[in-house]
Amino acid sequence: MADSPVLDLGFAQLDLGREERQGVAEVVYGPGKTREQITGIAAGLLAHNTGPVLVTRVDRETADVVRGQVGGGDYDADARLLCWRPAPAGDFTVAVVSAGTADWPAAAEARAVAAAIGLGTAVIHDVGVAGLDRVLAVRDQLRSCDAVIVVAGMEGALASVVGGLVASPVIAVPTSAGYGSSFEGITALLAMHASCAAGITVVGIDSGFGAAMAVHRIARTVAGAR
Amino acid sequence: MADSPVLDLGFAQLDLGREERQGVAEVVYGPGKTREQITGIAAGLLAHNTGPVLVTRVDRETADVVRGQVGGGDYDADARLLCWRPAPAGDFTVAVVSAGTADWPAAAEARAVAAAIGLGTAVIHDVGVAGLDRVLAVRDQLRSCDAVIVVAGMEGALASVVGGLVASPVIAVPTSAGYGSSFEGITALLAMHASCAAGITVVGIDSGFGAAMAVHRIARTVAGAR
Amino acid sequence: MADSPVLDLGFAQLDLGREERQGVAEVVYGPGKTREQITGIAAGLLAHNTGPVLVTRVDRETADVVRGQVGGGDYDADARLLCWRPAPAGDFTVAVVSAGTADWPAAAEARAVAAAIGLGTAVIHDVGVAGLDRVLAVRDQLRSCDAVIVVAGMEGALASVVGGLVASPVIAVPTSAGYGSSFEGITALLAMHASCAAGITVVGIDSGFGAAMAVHRIARTVAGAR
Amino acid sequence: MADSPVLDLGFAQLDLGREERQGVAEVVYGPGKTREQITGIAAGLLAHNTGPVLVTRVDRETADVVRGQVGGGDYDADARLLCWRPAPAGDFTVAVVSAGTADWPAAAEARAVAAAIGLGTAVIHDVGVAGLDRVLAVRDQLRSCDAVIVVAGMEGALASVVGGLVASPVIAVPTSAGYGSSFEGITALLAMHASCAAGITVVGIDSGFGAAMAVHRIARTVAGAR
Amino acid sequence: MADSPVLDLGFAQLDLGREERQGVAEVVYGPGKTREQITGIAAGLLAHNTGPVLVTRVDRETADVVRGQVGGGDYDADARLLCWRPAPAGDFTVAVVSAGTADWPAAAEARAVAAAIGLGTAVIHDVGVAGLDRVLAVRDQLRSCDAVIVVAGMEGALASVVGGLVASPVIAVPTSAGYGSSFEGITALLAMHASCAAGITVVGIDSGFGAAMAVHRIARTVAGAR
Amino acid sequence: MADSPVLDLGFAQLDLGREERQGVAEVVYGPGKTREQITGIAAGLLAHNTGPVLVTRVDRETADVVRGQVGGGDYDADARLLCWRPAPAGDFTVAVVSAGTADWPAAAEARAVAAAIGLGTAVIHDVGVAGLDRVLAVRDQLRSCDAVIVVAGMEGALASVVGGLVASPVIAVPTSAGYGSSFEGITALLAMHASCAAGITVVGIDSGFGAAMAVHRIARTVAGAR
Amino acid sequence: MADSPVLDLGFAQLDLGREERQGVAEVVYGPGKTREQITGIAAGLLAHNTGPVLVTRVDRETADVVRGQVGGGDYDADARLLCWRPAPAGDFTVAVVSAGTADWPAAAEARAVAAAIGLGTAVIHDVGVAGLDRVLAVRDQLRSCDAVIVVAGMEGALASVVGGLVASPVIAVPTSAGYGSSFEGITALLAMHASCAAGITVVGIDSGFGAAMAVHRIARTVAGAR
Amino acid sequence: MADSPVLDLGFAQLDLGREERQGVAEVVYGPGKTREQITGIAAGLLAHNTGPVLVTRVDRETADVVRGQVGGGDYDADARLLCWRPAPAGDFTVAVVSAGTADWPAAAEARAVAAAIGLGTAVIHDVGVAGLDRVLAVRDQLRSCDAVIVVAGMEGALASVVGGLVASPVIAVPTSAGYGSSFEGITALLAMHASCAAGITVVGIDSGFGAAMAVHRIARTVAGAR
Repeated sequence: MADSPVLDLGFAQLDLGREERQGVAEVVYGPGKTREQITGIAAGLLAHNTGPVLVTRVDRETADVVRGQVGGGDYDADARLLCWRPAPAGDFTVAVVSAGTADWPAAAEARAVAAAIGLGTAVIHDVGVAGLDRVLAVRDQLRSCDAVIVVAGMEGALASVVGGLVASPVIAVPTSAGYGSSFEGITALLAMHASCAAGITVVGIDSGFGAAMAVHRIARTVAGAR
Repeated sequence: MADSPVLDLGFAQLDLGREERQGVAEVVYGPGKTREQITGIAAGLLAHNTGPVLVTRVDRETADVVRGQVGGGDYDADARLLCWRPAPAGDFTVAVVSAGTADWPAAAEARAVAAAIGLGTAVIHDVGVAGLDRVLAVRDQLRSCDAVIVVAGMEGALASVVGGLVASPVIAVPTSAGYGSSFEGITALLAMHASCAAGITVVGIDSGFGAAMAVHRIARTVAGAR
Repeated sequence: MADSPVLDLGFAQLDLGREERQGVAEVVYGPGKTREQITGIAAGLLAHNTGPVLVTRVDRETADVVRGQVGGGDYDADARLLCWRPAPAGDFTVAVVSAGTADWPAAAEARAVAAAIGLGTAVIHDVGVAGLDRVLAVRDQLRSCDAVIVVAGMEGALASVVGGLVASPVIAVPTSAGYGSSFEGITALLAMHASCAAGITVVGIDSGFGAAMAVHRIARTVAGAR
Repeated sequence: MADSPVLDLGFAQLDLGREERQGVAEVVYGPGKTREQITGIAAGLLAHNTGPVLVTRVDRETADVVRGQVGGGDYDADARLLCWRPAPAGDFTVAVVSAGTADWPAAAEARAVAAAIGLGTAVIHDVGVAGLDRVLAVRDQLRSCDAVIVVAGMEGALASVVGGLVASPVIAVPTSAGYGSSFEGITALLAMHASCAAGITVVGIDSGFGAAMAVHRIARTVAGAR
Repeated sequence: MADSPVLDLGFAQLDLGREERQGVAEVVYGPGKTREQITGIAAGLLAHNTGPVLVTRVDRETADVVRGQVGGGDYDADARLLCWRPAPAGDFTVAVVSAGTADWPAAAEARAVAAAIGLGTAVIHDVGVAGLDRVLAVRDQLRSCDAVIVVAGMEGALASVVGGLVASPVIAVPTSAGYGSSFEGITALLAMHASCAAGITVVGIDSGFGAAMAVHRIARTVAGAR
Repeated sequence: MADSPVLDLGFAQLDLGREERQGVAEVVYGPGKTREQITGIAAGLLAHNTGPVLVTRVDRETADVVRGQVGGGDYDADARLLCWRPAPAGDFTVAVVSAGTADWPAAAEARAVAAAIGLGTAVIHDVGVAGLDRVLAVRDQLRSCDAVIVVAGMEGALASVVGGLVASPVIAVPTSAGYGSSFEGITALLAMHASCAAGITVVGIDSGFGAAMAVHRIARTVAGAR
Repeated sequence: MADSPVLDLGFAQLDLGREERQGVAEVVYGPGKTREQITGIAAGLLAHNTGPVLVTRVDRETADVVRGQVGGGDYDADARLLCWRPAPAGDFTVAVVSAGTADWPAAAEARAVAAAIGLGTAVIHDVGVAGLDRVLAVRDQLRSCDAVIVVAGMEGALASVVGGLVASPVIAVPTSAGYGSSFEGITALLAMHASCAAGITVVGIDSGFGAAMAVHRIARTVAGAR
Repeated sequence: MADSPVLDLGFAQLDLGREERQGVAEVVYGPGKTREQITGIAAGLLAHNTGPVLVTRVDRETADVVRGQVGGGDYDADARLLCWRPAPAGDFTVAVVSAGTADWPAAAEARAVAAAIGLGTAVIHDVGVAGLDRVLAVRDQLRSCDAVIVVAGMEGALASVVGGLVASPVIAVPTSAGYGSSFEGITALLAMHASCAAGITVVGIDSGFGAAMAVHRIARTVAGAR
């Protein structure tokens, strides 16, 4: 096995080959890292890779400090995403659909990461199933996209409904939004896994990032087929 | 407090006043009781009360033995319900809606208990949300009923959808049907509690009986108002 | 299916048809929404619906800001409820019974929402079952109401006791009050579902709002029967 | 520390000093042991101790085989208890109260073990809180006993109610009886721990044995005081 | 049933008969109550009962304010207990044994409540089983007491060890002390329930108060026997 | 909304439009259905749709009876799948990789369903990460496929490792295989959701069917792009 | 990386290099495998490796069939272990200590696997902490061994006690033995992880095999040091 | 049994014999202790023992205060460890391997405690399995150590992979690092217990201290063998 290039920063080992292997460089998860560490990792990735470099779940202050050190970069406050060298939008379009306004943080992360890695995005929000006309009204729009990310907390029923309406890949993101018996997203996670709609897949709680990366894998396969 | 009449059978204390207090005599839960005990309790209730007498969750053999001892009675195999002196149907009609064929046992129990205590019933089954047209097709029928019992396992999303479609009371019954990540009804129970549709209430897992009795309470209130 | 009217605010899709469909306009859940969003939604609902408009779980500061923008409205600090155009009280009366003083926030929400949507309310508090005479003392009062909301944390036993005393609909609200082994309301939720009193229904943890809306569904059915 | 006498049977180490140390010899838990092992242990305890010898949770066949080998002994089929040399009844009386007929196995074990080790027993069954008059009717009887064992499954509310009615020690036994959301006794166990009645204590699920032994400890203390 | 006296304070219903019925007046759980409510309840109990009045889980500031209003009273900062009219110590002595220094808050509450209601107390702390000599060294002291409260977090093994050493009643208090896999006391609670030592009973997590009240019930029975 | 065709069989409502809407007719989940019901549903789907008809989780006896009634059909005993009119294999190839021999049932279902609906399949089994050379040896084969289904029980680590090796879509199937602390697949389900490999998606426990259907959605999108 | 030798049996990939890499060939977990598969795997390992070959968790019938096909081999019914070519006993001795007779199956597996791979073993059983003298009596024997495997169900307290008595490595095996609140070993697993004795490690529920293999790793390190 | 020396500080009982019995004096767990208590305990241990004295999980301020009182001592901020009289490094070397940068706090504690008690340490971090080349690159280094501590959160797969690569003892530390579905380390804990790599052992969540102490036990055994 040919060794993949690794950059040893002392406090981290950058997997430099990931960009070639998987199409996107390592994405940096911000929480638990110091600003110096984020700066060092971002600089290393920017120097040794050529495509988008992303840091997720960072607040604006951290983003500003890191951008001051590294130079360049854009910060999306809703998505809490810091990004350099976003990819140009390709032909593949993903719909990001959310059930309620409280699901916006995860939906925003999904949208921003998807856009940063070159996917076309369409955002549809607040179409929870208690008022079914709202989701039925956007059925054609959903069907026109190549994939759908469904972001929902509480009971997560929107994933089942959308899964029954479209034929394209559906990635469900359970969110920690909700109250009462939502149990920080566990209820939605279980419900999405027990969905009666066939072929839905699920990512981790609040992981808009994970959903966008799952779509990225699909889009690569489609691009290879074109 | 005036003491309520109690019949002491040695192995059980029959709460004879419940029929007057709540409109239906004590309902006998079959499992864990011997055939002799069921026979004794049923005979006692028939002798000291005047309305319907019900035994739930009994198999046909037990039902036959008990009926041989007590005399009379009808057995509904789908509902596993043994019943004497069913009440005549009143004006109140409840729809019993199920998401899939596997939810039938709980739905059958709800229907049979409801009918035995004098509620009109309409059964609608297999209208899970993965094919939304099925539930939309019965929307008017649902709206014409005085209450709706929604019976669903897996992710239980049908409760949220029905809750948004009708204005009448909706009682959700999570079922242990399902597989994978249904966890014997826990997923549906949690999801129904976290429902985004306001004013839905939930009873215990597989408790078609509990749902029918909840509707009985509502129907009594309505009857009092008429 | 005739499309239901929807008002698109950009960040939210108001289900304007809900008031006609279910008798109460969309109720706004406050947490996770900015003051601007709450203001926009409330203004939209007030303009396009004619009945009560409610925002739940808001603190006084937020309420003051929103009221300053929208004009009018009343704030109930105990219930944390912001309300415009409350409905006149109808004939249907619901008792709101709580087990202890720590259950008051959820009971207050149930009472305030119920009153705002036109239900008569009677509040009875601190009648936990460790001193049984307290609940026995109000038995007649409970029986004179059309429905009972039981609000209890800890082991939630009050729901079973009340369920055995009255014949009317009983909606149980498990609360996160309690300590030791109450587990933020899970113990009460499970206990209420496993209640030996037939026909009790349960709503989500701390959901005084959900209980009031469940009673609203019942009251509508009763009103239709009158 | 003076070594306590131990009898090594190869497959088991009998703690012969326990009878002197705690007033009752080691009690043998039957499940998972072969008939030969039970026989050997019982014979050893009978030979080296002087008071009652008990084997719990054995079926009749096993009991018959063991009694055939060891000689003597009585078998209580309801309690599934095999017993030699029961102690004469002393002055201390415990009430064993159960909520429903399905709780009888655990209640029978509590009663039989208590009787075998010399406690007076009074059995009261089927006084669940859905028909409150039943438990109120036996209040004076409960108050006349020195301690109360409350055996209840489902939501376990009887423990809270009894705890509020009597001043004597109350030991609660959650049972695995129940269905729907009883979760094999977990619901009752949690509910009993979260009880609003002060000073209730709880033993393991279905552990009628544990409750009887807890009362034994109390009775010893009382006897020491007399 | 003769009605028990109740004092209606508007926000609370004082069960004035509890002192006569159970030997100690209602104990006030502080959290979730305003200082005005605590003041009102304490004043009411002091006026209408004659024995000890206790408020648990209050901070010093609250205690000072309440004492300023009501007059008198003592505050124990370790136990967070506010107490008026403590009972004179009787003949019954309880040992309060803790496994580690982190278990002190629950142990202090057990000790202070026990003392306030007239029990003699002996405190033994930091005798966790990892250094078994420590608990063996106090074996005789433990055996000389009438009952033992074992306070332990983490794996709670001290309860099993003490249960095997003494013949008197053992009440185990699982605490939320601990880290790693202690899960806020759940591990200790389950372990204490699964204890191999017969006749141990368990109260709620951190409930030193509950343990003291359980001993109170035992001591009353002993006193009745003397 | 144009109504979708539904065939009402009395005991089931067939969603006949699903084949056109989503590319595969309703798939019948066998458990909980009688042989007569399965026969009726299969006959209905064969008559009103034109593509593959599948029944999952059926034993051979049931399959033989149904095939005797309906005519035709093939039964795959490993996959427990009954199938009529399988689709011809298209250009899209999915690898089905399993961690151990105990994962074969779920892997066999994934493979058989995938093949029946027209996907090319490559099966690679027993490449658990404890012997890493095994999965490294098939890395090129994995990379040559359009998507990968990873089937693993126990700790599910294979999903993370494969997710890091390939750039194509990875669908993880947690299985109930395993012992000790596998908890019927819950451990694997949680671990796959917490995977450090970005863009992995997860389906329900043991749901080889769900994984195959998820790949079907991807393959449709790819086919649309070609 | 030099590829490790793999033997492809069609249904399994044997990691032939594991014996050289880790000192023991792959151990075959029996459940879920057909007798033909076990026979094939055992024959393959015997042909291509030189040391012990083990199959765990097999019943006698399966063992007899496999031995009939493969030739040779010994079956240990207590441990449910099938073994060929056991290693000669080395200098390293492990004590296998169990808390009760019900823990014997896991203890027997630990002992038999340890012996088969060349460890000296000393078995000490039934020394649960409720009779502390029993474990204190074997303290010196425990201290004379190079490592200790503690096998315990219920509350698992023996692990903490042994951990405090010896200085050598302690591997704790939680067992599913126990009842009431043992929850199939979860209680013991959590309790062992929360142990107050420093440096204890834990393996999976009932995994006598895992504990023996953990000691094997330690013994190899010791052997390298000698 | 000869009594082990105990130093009674009033608020704590120091197990002075532990150093002789187990090779390291009692280690002080900081949280929940006052600075005065920590000072008293540390001074007592320093006076009555001769080897290393450690206080874990203390912040710098506390450390400074205690050091000011006691004199001497070193503080490691990453490990939050306060240490006096560290042992000289012996021949035994342990590798501390972490999966990601967020696992550093637990890894730092493992490293610092190991070093303080005389073990040689090698730190390797950020070698998560999503980029497998990183861990393969350090395989030889891992194999050259006498034991390996694997520190990983999220899905904890690194433990299985390392367990398959090395033959020496592997102690897995699940960490609370991670998000989405990591559940504060529970996912990693369960996954490590269900690992397919034989002979891995697990310590409590985030317990770098526990892992270091487990290695200490192994190193003592090795040292005894040399």
